[in-house]
Amino acid sequence: MKLASIVTIGDEILIGQVLDTNSRHLALALEEMGIHVNRMLSIGDNAREIASTLSRELAQNDIVITTGGLGPTKDDITKGVLSQLTGSKGLVRHPGQLEKVHSILKSRGLDVLPINLAQADVPDTAEVIVNRLGTAPIMIFRNVNGGGTLYSLPGVPHEAVGAIPEVLEDIRKHQQLSNILHRNVVVYGMAESALSELIAPWEDALPSQMHLAYLPNPLTGIRLRLSCYGGDSDQENQIMDEEIGKLKAILGNLVYADQDSNLETEIGKLLKEHGLTLSAAESCTGGEIAHLITSVPGSSAYFLGSVTSYAISVKESVLGVPAQTIEKNGVVSAEVAAAMAEGVRKLTGSDYAVSTTGLAGPGGDEFNPEGTVWVGVATPHVTKTIKYNYKNDRLRNIERFAASALNFLRLQILEEI
Amino acid sequence: MKLASIVTIGDEILIGQVLDTNSRHLALALEEMGIHVNRMLSIGDNAREIASTLSRELAQNDIVITTGGLGPTKDDITKGVLSQLTGSKGLVRHPGQLEKVHSILKSRGLDVLPINLAQADVPDTAEVIVNRLGTAPIMIFRNVNGGGTLYSLPGVPHEAVGAIPEVLEDIRKHQQLSNILHRNVVVYGMAESALSELIAPWEDALPSQMHLAYLPNPLTGIRLRLSCYGGDSDQENQIMDEEIGKLKAILGNLVYADQDSNLETEIGKLLKEHGLTLSAAESCTGGEIAHLITSVPGSSAYFLGSVTSYAISVKESVLGVPAQTIEKNGVVSAEVAAAMAEGVRKLTGSDYAVSTTGLAGPGGDEFNPEGTVWVGVATPHVTKTIKYNYKNDRLRNIERFAASALNFLRLQILEEI
Repeated sequence: MKLASIVTIGDEILIGQVLDTNSRHLALALEEMGIHVNRMLSIGDNAREIASTLSRELAQNDIVITTGGLGPTKDDITKGVLSQLTGSKGLVRHPGQLEKVHSILKSRGLDVLPINLAQADVPDTAEVIVNRLGTAPIMIFRNVNGGGTLYSLPGVPHEAVGAIPEVLEDIRKHQQLSNILHRNVVVYGMAESALSELIAPWEDALPSQMHLAYLPNPLTGIRLRLSCYGGDSDQENQIMDEEIGKLKAILGNLVYADQDSNLETEIGKLLKEHGLTLSAAESCTGGEIAHLITSVPGSSAYFLGSVTSYAISVKESVLGVPAQTIEKNGVVSAEVAAAMAEGVRKLTGSDYAVSTTGLAGPGGDEFNPEGTVWVGVATPHVTKTIKYNYKNDRLRNIERFAASALNFLRLQILEEI
Repeated sequence: MKLASIVTIGDEILIGQVLDTNSRHLALALEEMGIHVNRMLSIGDNAREIASTLSRELAQNDIVITTGGLGPTKDDITKGVLSQLTGSKGLVRHPGQLEKVHSILKSRGLDVLPINLAQADVPDTAEVIVNRLGTAPIMIFRNVNGGGTLYSLPGVPHEAVGAIPEVLEDIRKHQQLSNILHRNVVVYGMAESALSELIAPWEDALPSQMHLAYLPNPLTGIRLRLSCYGGDSDQENQIMDEEIGKLKAILGNLVYADQDSNLETEIGKLLKEHGLTLSAAESCTGGEIAHLITSVPGSSAYFLGSVTSYAISVKESVLGVPAQTIEKNGVVSAEVAAAMAEGVRKLTGSDYAVSTTGLAGPGGDEFNPEGTVWVGVATPHVTKTIKYNYKNDRLRNIERFAASALNFLRLQILEEI
């Protein structure tokens, strides 16, 4: 299996000013090609550090991809280091990139200064892919000192990401890549440890060329990713089908998707497919459920709207929750959750409605500890409620409340369609 | 100056399925203490790689902070490597963390399995900070093999970020740090380049020991951080007061906070201080504004609630937007934004109301391009609307819409109180 290393160059990342997202995009792309990303590094604009890091990574990997360190300002010294490292006899001005420098600066109404022209200069040891989106060229240095091939990309995120297809094409052309196949099963509603015990017998019996990874996310559950290495593609697919079939039989409706997804997207698909509509009544989640649902493009096809009833007066006047229900049971109660879901369902005329009332914290009340939430679901057939308890900080509780409510809604929709 | 290295451990980062945000939070925090972050690395769940990386980083840095590699499943082998590296004679179960494991699982209604109990085990060479937010302990290994001190943090983002204050406190106690003073001025409503031009004369005249950093964030605006190095504390404070005073005079009400904050927190303070209440009517922001406002602890004191009116029928029936207003002006219009704000203000009885109607994308309509939003604010005195246009993807547009709406609301509150 081919090995790769991803290196970002720039002080702005080390001081925390900029979040590096380029490395993740590159890692995703390499991984899908069956290239193993060995290491990611972020280093500063320091010639010695750049030289020693790149020498080491090139000696240990087939592919090294750098982003950053190529801007026009004086602290960008990467190009000098690359010249030295590859034994370049000097810089040459690349005509294709030079043209880009002129056209980009012209389109921005800026004069072309010598400092800009110099951006089209590359060590004579480099092959160039013209950067269509910016002034800094994409440089390739093959088999540096008998080691790996170095791809030098600009640091600006849309330029780095924009360069990925051409870099992958070059890698595919020059490296012998092995077969790799991934499949995902995404589950919600069980902790990682319990899940791990549940599927241990299945996992232990996996063929040796298969590997399982747990990818947990508080908002979306746990993605189980099964990878199959080597073998020919038909055979891999057949083994995969078998193993995924066994896994799904164990997990039942804990499984909600076959690919990287989230509850709101999958609920949206169910609703759209069956021509159903949805509304929400939120107290403690304060708009998070509506936000998640409307994060999905096209959600206006099934989501009618929601009421965030933070004040008791709004629960009563807008959602029609009877004052006696609140007095008798307290605001955080199954009865209020049910009345909220039924209320917003009636108000908007939706088929389904989901509601939350709870205490995200800090602080609980006399009846319920912090982290308690009652979730309600009202449907054409039934109203159901369920209580969850989490022990996180306010923001995390809100996330978990919202995700739990969406999962409860999903299970109810599945029961009825 | 003390040197630090930040290491994330976990295959999930190297395969690109998880974006590492922990390192940036740690880098920001270390930088503010005057500690130089030398390097950031991401490595996989591989014992040899973890051991060699940590040995190298500990030899070259005063502080090494790791995140990740501490989950309950079998591919988490970090603890074994840390034992070997520090010459531990065995694992000991930490009573404080054990209690946390029990209470967290109990609160989630889960059984405590042996795999969970083992999470409270630490090498006998470790000092422990109890992780209040999760099951994996925070471990400190001092002066490993005569080199730097290692802090091992969990990988789950809110747990890692939640551990930062205690880690910083420990670093402050054990390292000799040089004097550094920071002050912040947080602004919203001006692009970085324009802001930079506006304050250039002031910045160029800064005393040599002072340094300005731009820390932009799409949701919260730009934090201008002024740092003063060396000198005694009284003198630093006096110079700071003077320079911050000059800066604020230039920026006027672009400034909304003196410390890392956000619009929803500062709006909350204004409302609370003046005994005012707020509601929201959201279309394209789909609950994000309500979510942001209710993310602030204590927001129930001033936030009455909101309506997410995704469907036109909900705009009409719940918010009372006249059908003719929509027909005549289109849904994305100043008139509809105004009617939504006035409608939710009346419905909830709040003093202030903010509304949004726009197109987050993908796709615009016949009247407006994707990224258009009309924001409305209704107050006891006036109703105002404003249009913004952004050019991002759906999620980024929703964020920018919500932040712009909150800022428009903030400016109107400031005008009236």
